[in-house]
Amino acid sequence: MLNINFEGAYKFLTKEEISKAKEDAKKAYKVLKDKSGPGNDFIGWFDYPISYDKEELERIKAAAQTIQRTSEVLVVIGIGGSYLGARAVIEALTPYFENSGLEIIFAGNSISSTYLTKLRYYLGDKDFSVNVISKSGTTTEPAIAFRFLYSLLKKKYFKDELREHIFFTTDSTKGALRQIGIENDFEMFTIPSDMGGRYSVFSAVGLLPIAAMGFDIDSLLKGAKTAYNNFKNKEDNEAFEYALVRNALLRKGYDIEILESFEPCLSYISEWWKQLFGESEGKEGKGIYPSSVIFTTDLHSLGQYIQDGRRNLFETCINIVNPVSDIDIPFDKDNLDSLNYIAGKSIDYVNKAAMNATMEAHIEGGVPQIRINIDELDEINIGYLLYFFMVSCGISGYTLGVNPFNQEGVEAYKKNMFIALGKPGYTK
Amino acid sequence: MLNINFEGAYKFLTKEEISKAKEDAKKAYKVLKDKSGPGNDFIGWFDYPISYDKEELERIKAAAQTIQRTSEVLVVIGIGGSYLGARAVIEALTPYFENSGLEIIFAGNSISSTYLTKLRYYLGDKDFSVNVISKSGTTTEPAIAFRFLYSLLKKKYFKDELREHIFFTTDSTKGALRQIGIENDFEMFTIPSDMGGRYSVFSAVGLLPIAAMGFDIDSLLKGAKTAYNNFKNKEDNEAFEYALVRNALLRKGYDIEILESFEPCLSYISEWWKQLFGESEGKEGKGIYPSSVIFTTDLHSLGQYIQDGRRNLFETCINIVNPVSDIDIPFDKDNLDSLNYIAGKSIDYVNKAAMNATMEAHIEGGVPQIRINIDELDEINIGYLLYFFMVSCGISGYTLGVNPFNQEGVEAYKKNMFIALGKPGYTK
Repeated sequence: MLNINFEGAYKFLTKEEISKAKEDAKKAYKVLKDKSGPGNDFIGWFDYPISYDKEELERIKAAAQTIQRTSEVLVVIGIGGSYLGARAVIEALTPYFENSGLEIIFAGNSISSTYLTKLRYYLGDKDFSVNVISKSGTTTEPAIAFRFLYSLLKKKYFKDELREHIFFTTDSTKGALRQIGIENDFEMFTIPSDMGGRYSVFSAVGLLPIAAMGFDIDSLLKGAKTAYNNFKNKEDNEAFEYALVRNALLRKGYDIEILESFEPCLSYISEWWKQLFGESEGKEGKGIYPSSVIFTTDLHSLGQYIQDGRRNLFETCINIVNPVSDIDIPFDKDNLDSLNYIAGKSIDYVNKAAMNATMEAHIEGGVPQIRINIDELDEINIGYLLYFFMVSCGISGYTLGVNPFNQEGVEAYKKNMFIALGKPGYTK
Repeated sequence: MLNINFEGAYKFLTKEEISKAKEDAKKAYKVLKDKSGPGNDFIGWFDYPISYDKEELERIKAAAQTIQRTSEVLVVIGIGGSYLGARAVIEALTPYFENSGLEIIFAGNSISSTYLTKLRYYLGDKDFSVNVISKSGTTTEPAIAFRFLYSLLKKKYFKDELREHIFFTTDSTKGALRQIGIENDFEMFTIPSDMGGRYSVFSAVGLLPIAAMGFDIDSLLKGAKTAYNNFKNKEDNEAFEYALVRNALLRKGYDIEILESFEPCLSYISEWWKQLFGESEGKEGKGIYPSSVIFTTDLHSLGQYIQDGRRNLFETCINIVNPVSDIDIPFDKDNLDSLNYIAGKSIDYVNKAAMNATMEAHIEGGVPQIRINIDELDEINIGYLLYFFMVSCGISGYTLGVNPFNQEGVEAYKKNMFIALGKPGYTK
């Protein structure tokens, strides 16, 4: 399902460096599993692949069907961890240029006035539903988007129809959305209180949009559960090893990690990963800076830097072993483009040759590397991959010596903004 | 049109550090203008806003009209600098959710078999044109894409119709595309031989796709020309100052630069910028690592790291002073979302408050910052902005002590790949 080749990283580390990091990561892993470290009230995601709410899962599937029946467009309103997981899974699973029938639009993740005004116009005469994902219901970006779209929905549908177009994913006991939901009898799903947004993809936060787009959330959860069981049965598993290797590299001065893939539809997996690791580890002046590229595209962009720039970066490449579609390169009698030497080979064969060639060149150029191989882009493999990253991130953060489950730095700009805007209760 | 606030960077630098960097940047600027440094045969872009081929410009406009008349889709085939500039300008100028009639698709910038097989199917019964952009015509990615789409076009159109659907942008004297073009009497445009891909946006490379999408390339060039003249008349201009400040910061250990914007449609301006600076400076173990985020989106992702992670990064924020569209936040009598404190304010007003709050918080968090203000997102301002970055990159690269106009590191993976694939002429 998933296997990782760490050889390209071990080349750059001594036995002592590895064994020291291993020792520290072992302690960190124990702290995570025992729930004895800082942020331990936000580790609910750890057991979630087995402890998830089965009744809610069935309600999610039913709501997904309702959305498919009533709507041309689903607008998912949420920011950060409230949309990145769903978007990552949906884009990875949606073959390019194909359309499931239902269109998905993400909103409330910026304060672009142009985006929101154009979106309202675009939705004008379409049947649409919204899934608002916010713990409090008062986060600025999603709250503004929902205030506009709610008023559009109320003009478009009778009061008793609204129930089939508005779905809240929010706190189970409190907050503005919960109150609006109760007053209007909207269907509501739970953001579990014991996990942060970036660890919530397997809860209703991720599952409702994913199911609405027609993907198999049972298989997604099964992938996560398989990872859960594998890690439980084997102490020295790939999540543990990824955590220890990246910490060993950081200690040696490799402070930028680039997540790479040779398949463009993984770009939002990278965005999700950047939030996961950046927000978990970037604190107290510490942390590996997470960056991402899509190859071969960016070999003609950041490729030069990676090959030959400052030597403080390492790379983690996600390799999809079997592509969704493939085709052979045809023979051309004129051969003006000089491609006949690969005629009869498949495009994916060439893509894999490019990948191997790149990895080899980067090693030679002094870039430590980790290669994550996953069998294919389907729900079960992606479920495994995301859960793998989450566990590894928990271990890695504790190894680094930070609380991987808080994000106090996110409040700094908010506080300044609320003061500037005159929000009640905020003063200099 | 464009003004830059460097105060947030100067706070982190001593007078001596600034004056030393200024001295070095001055020499570098002279080397660039005198064309006396390494790579000086690739500085044709510098005078291009006045020296461009006027006859070709008219042919570009005519070809753009042909494409609009004959096609539902324009497929732009090119990789790296052969598509990033056009894509950056087009996305920045296309309001979200609006459609000019002609759809643009970028291909030949990866080796994804899934992407290409699905694209062929998608194009199946549509009228489409291709603009192939490649100096040699044998670069692997675009050559593969064109081999497939050329065969599709030949099935779809009679021989004499092909001329209205195939447009080459290539070397003016040699290469595979030129030969195919001559043999078939296709219309051809020139990639000037004295500029690298990442500096080619104002040539036919960028202009044909941009014109085909209905944008005003005269104004785009006018913006570049305005910048050209401003820089000519004032030695201590913003391009010079940006180059010196980022070098001063790098020397002080700030080795990651994050390009930021509060408008999502600028994300490909960032991609273009990352190639420009990364490929120009990332060599000989040197260079600032270029990264990018979209705010407020990524304040809920990399925001935590920027606020509180390792203190080796600085930020450059592009601020669009006047948004394309704006709207006031309505009053809501229930106010369950607690937004009434900003009712009556426009969304962009809130976005700017978020921007100012973020900049203030990051300064407090120890992040040097540069703020680039541009009046609005139109052709003239974008032309100015891109030319500004190009000149600044040339100065910056020479200040750093590298040749900003080559990219030898890009060859490393290609050579390995050609050997692995058995390309004639390549051996271990």
